[in-house]
Amino acid sequence: MNDNSFLFIIELIGTFAFAVSGIRVAANKRVDLFGAYVVGLVTAIGGGTMRDLMLDVTPFWMLTPVYLVITGISLVLVIVMGKHLSRLEGTFFIFDTIGLAFFVVVGMQKSLAEDYPFWVAIIMGTFTGAFGGILRDILVNDLPLIFRKDIYASACIIGGLIYWGLDAASFNDIVCQSATAAGVILTRVAAVRFHWSLPTLKGDTGNVGNDNCKQPD
Amino acid sequence: MNDNSFLFIIELIGTFAFAVSGIRVAANKRVDLFGAYVVGLVTAIGGGTMRDLMLDVTPFWMLTPVYLVITGISLVLVIVMGKHLSRLEGTFFIFDTIGLAFFVVVGMQKSLAEDYPFWVAIIMGTFTGAFGGILRDILVNDLPLIFRKDIYASACIIGGLIYWGLDAASFNDIVCQSATAAGVILTRVAAVRFHWSLPTLKGDTGNVGNDNCKQPD
Amino acid sequence: MNDNSFLFIIELIGTFAFAVSGIRVAANKRVDLFGAYVVGLVTAIGGGTMRDLMLDVTPFWMLTPVYLVITGISLVLVIVMGKHLSRLEGTFFIFDTIGLAFFVVVGMQKSLAEDYPFWVAIIMGTFTGAFGGILRDILVNDLPLIFRKDIYASACIIGGLIYWGLDAASFNDIVCQSATAAGVILTRVAAVRFHWSLPTLKGDTGNVGNDNCKQPD
Repeated sequence: MNDNSFLFIIELIGTFAFAVSGIRVAANKRVDLFGAYVVGLVTAIGGGTMRDLMLDVTPFWMLTPVYLVITGISLVLVIVMGKHLSRLEGTFFIFDTIGLAFFVVVGMQKSLAEDYPFWVAIIMGTFTGAFGGILRDILVNDLPLIFRKDIYASACIIGGLIYWGLDAASFNDIVCQSATAAGVILTRVAAVRFHWSLPTLKGDTGNVGNDNCKQPD
Repeated sequence: MNDNSFLFIIELIGTFAFAVSGIRVAANKRVDLFGAYVVGLVTAIGGGTMRDLMLDVTPFWMLTPVYLVITGISLVLVIVMGKHLSRLEGTFFIFDTIGLAFFVVVGMQKSLAEDYPFWVAIIMGTFTGAFGGILRDILVNDLPLIFRKDIYASACIIGGLIYWGLDAASFNDIVCQSATAAGVILTRVAAVRFHWSLPTLKGDTGNVGNDNCKQPD
Repeated sequence: MNDNSFLFIIELIGTFAFAVSGIRVAANKRVDLFGAYVVGLVTAIGGGTMRDLMLDVTPFWMLTPVYLVITGISLVLVIVMGKHLSRLEGTFFIFDTIGLAFFVVVGMQKSLAEDYPFWVAIIMGTFTGAFGGILRDILVNDLPLIFRKDIYASACIIGGLIYWGLDAASFNDIVCQSATAAGVILTRVAAVRFHWSLPTLKGDTGNVGNDNCKQPD
């Protein structure tokens, strides 16, 4: 198995894990099969699509139907497995974390290939990994979970900083990318294992915003 | 009346029906006139705008102000007609279905013109027809209706498959497009008449997602 | 201080005010630090990003990290100031209004520079000023405030019409842009001072839409 087919398998695993996540969230809202498919697809490809729009390249899923097929397989799996899926939580966590690491690396690579600086690449990597989940929660009308729990996105940023540091130290691409992926995975696993989370911000004065500010009396 | 002016009238009817749909949903949330206009506009042009961004062409509504004008007319109509609008439900259903069929055909045409394969064109056609309504429901903070009711999007996909099949059988564009539109319209009308709907997916374990997966103990 | 550095300072003030607005809204939803940062960033750069995608130019924030830094400073400020922030409501209102005026002018300039007509430029100016707040409310799962209160977006449109009129009368760019900014600021301040608001649209028949229309019996 060469490098490319290895990466491709990783990508499929990540797409599958993200799609299943979207479909399961949708199922809890009692949507129909089409809705579940759409939410699964958006979860799997939404981050990468927004990234590609911002990088001004063709959205990746328009180049091969494999992402649509994987989402379809994910839907069939959720239907067939039903309640038994929850026994596989650990497997999904591993798949999801591998997928996340892969999405971060791909997002960074694509940005660097378009000659953007590292700080843009880190944002794009994080975006690729985290935005699908935000879109999923918007679609099903929830406050994005990623804003409240876990250090999901922080793991992406830590991975991105590792990439930057190793690249600055002149390590080659393989080393940079492997270490980035490892950084994302280890951070996420450690965060879940040791219950790390970011502090919550406290509100001040009720719901405020730039469109209902009050003028001073 | 030549072909183009016929298509243009169909497009205006579709835009009008979609804008009215958005404005009526917004009105039920007690938004102000600006909010109603925005929701109507997004419902009418949102799907096509996202499609054009993904195809990397200029969003269609930036080339002529007619879509903004139609949305304005829709707003005036909703204000003037008020409660009497509900008597026209049947007329709106017809307009909306014609518009949907048109949007699917346009979305497919534009994708094929950019040399994308049929499976991309079918997604873009469905996207053009269905995404405006999803954006509308996100804007007014509802779970998208399209995920729960009706076989709205499925009608788009069936239309798209008809286009694909007829094109593969070497029929010319006029035949393909007319049959696609007819397929969308008949599927939708039959679905409403015979109360067809897609099965609902059942939830499994409460709200799950790729950002709150639990690691196995 | 030359013109460009003056404009840059205005832009930073606007970005800061918008970011603080997003972070404060997020804080009231008890999100974590990352979530607050994302909502602040989206509020500050979301409108301009969507504008740049539609104009097919590189999103402005990908060219310099200053917007990310300003959002970070905004987050630190909200954390440090906490409840005391509400005493600065008047200052934020002024910053926010200055920022809004700036965003409208920049949005219009960029569109005109790409040879779009004035009606596109006015929409893009309004979009730049108002869409960040809409995205903010979608992210935190609220009905966008801008749809219900204030004449925020109307101030953008009035500013845009002033630009159009003065340009048609052959005034130079500096005059057009200054008058536009003044128009936005004065309209917004007057609207808040005199409690102007747009009329609310009344609903008709319960929740309707283009995906649950009923066929006539």
